Amino acid sequence: MARGRTERFITGRFDGGSLRREPDTLIVEEPLSIRLDDTLVATTMRTPGHDFELAAGFCHAEGWLEGAAIRRIRYCGEGPPVDSEFNVVSVETDGEGPPPAPRLGITSSSCGICGAEALDRLGETLAPLPATEPFEAAALAAVPERMRGLQELFAATGAVHAAGVTDASGEPLLVREDIGRHNAVDKVVGRLLLDDALPAASLCLYVSGRASFEMAQKAWAAGFSALVAVSAPSALAVQVARRAGLQLGGFARNGTIRIYAD
Amino acid sequence: MARGRTERFITGRFDGGSLRREPDTLIVEEPLSIRLDDTLVATTMRTPGHDFELAAGFCHAEGWLEGAAIRRIRYCGEGPPVDSEFNVVSVETDGEGPPPAPRLGITSSSCGICGAEALDRLGETLAPLPATEPFEAAALAAVPERMRGLQELFAATGAVHAAGVTDASGEPLLVREDIGRHNAVDKVVGRLLLDDALPAASLCLYVSGRASFEMAQKAWAAGFSALVAVSAPSALAVQVARRAGLQLGGFARNGTIRIYAD
Repeated sequence: MARGRTERFITGRFDGGSLRREPDTLIVEEPLSIRLDDTLVATTMRTPGHDFELAAGFCHAEGWLEGAAIRRIRYCGEGPPVDSEFNVVSVETDGEGPPPAPRLGITSSSCGICGAEALDRLGETLAPLPATEPFEAAALAAVPERMRGLQELFAATGAVHAAGVTDASGEPLLVREDIGRHNAVDKVVGRLLLDDALPAASLCLYVSGRASFEMAQKAWAAGFSALVAVSAPSALAVQVARRAGLQLGGFARNGTIRIYAD
Repeated sequence: MARGRTERFITGRFDGGSLRREPDTLIVEEPLSIRLDDTLVATTMRTPGHDFELAAGFCHAEGWLEGAAIRRIRYCGEGPPVDSEFNVVSVETDGEGPPPAPRLGITSSSCGICGAEALDRLGETLAPLPATEPFEAAALAAVPERMRGLQELFAATGAVHAAGVTDASGEPLLVREDIGRHNAVDKVVGRLLLDDALPAASLCLYVSGRASFEMAQKAWAAGFSALVAVSAPSALAVQVARRAGLQLGGFARNGTIRIYAD
């Protein structure tokens, strides 16, 4: 079931003076539909690979697996397999999970909510994280550099996000890549979920881009103790981290880092 | 109705040796619910500002304004205004628009689709772009640098995406910023729509990140002649651009660029 994650194209390279033909390797982007117990819950554009992790992690982040065990995950389709069947994944709890509902925090409220209310709703759904030994700033600052060598698709294409997990010393344990930064996090959380390793206490979640509200929410829902981003967090992400008791570092570059929540 | 788009936080700055307290400016992220003729069609996390453009551009990109004129756009709510009312925008066509349906290309198909099918569906919905004079590679290569000085929120926070429009010479005409890259594009397209300037023939759409399938789709739906990205396109975005007749440049840096579709 391995499917191509990169594709070669003939392109034109303009170096400032002339344009010449040159091949280039691009990241593959394909739709994935996720079904939960026979309900289609999402269609996302993703880079193929680790699809089961992505589907499991997505359902977890949405809060649809509370108290439910995943019985099986499979690609859809009966009869002779066709390519598009690898673009549908079914997560099956045999009906144990709560019915899919709007995602945590951001609901489809018709009257509108503000960020403070979104934060309050998260706080009603998720318990504060247990106190753990804080990560050393130096360990968090070094995470992006330690992860980089593991980001194979980034090395090939220069255009793909990564998420990863480190232990308390900042040692990388896992990395996943995807064209979508949310997908990369869902793949990582899905892997931990399938390994029965959630909540991720004393572990750090790494994201190769910025830390938005949804990233902080996913980190909290998975029980991570820290979140480190290569770029900056949003204001709301900092508020989520402070509410959760999640250590949050951003702009982790060249051995330096900014700590937004401790 | 001006609302803050950045917020100051006290943070800890680790320089490799010691950690000291230092203020930092972060980008604001708040939910926005978009209603179209009394139907809630989306809730997105966005940076406040240009909300009407965002709502108009989003509805346009989804194909919900075919043959319909926007009669008015307004913030929701009656009675004394409260803060969360600025997080709901209503786009009103007085029922002229088609009823909201799944977005172009990526539908909520229960049987799953592959990228080639998504592309075919786009091709059924959108006509090929009219042939226009191609942009000079040198002009496209210079766009990011010319835009940078206009990206005020990026200058303040280092963590916000931009989209913009240039004329045929690469001269910036418009720039919009948002924590979400899709939102930044929707704001730009919404501005053109409200100015009755669509289709955007002979204009170039600039995006500060990568060019994914959805970016290429939005550029095509708005009728741009070119799309230039600071980073790489996905394989599927290149296929969309080639199908559309959309000139596509990526990795536009230091006066160089790679041309993926011409």
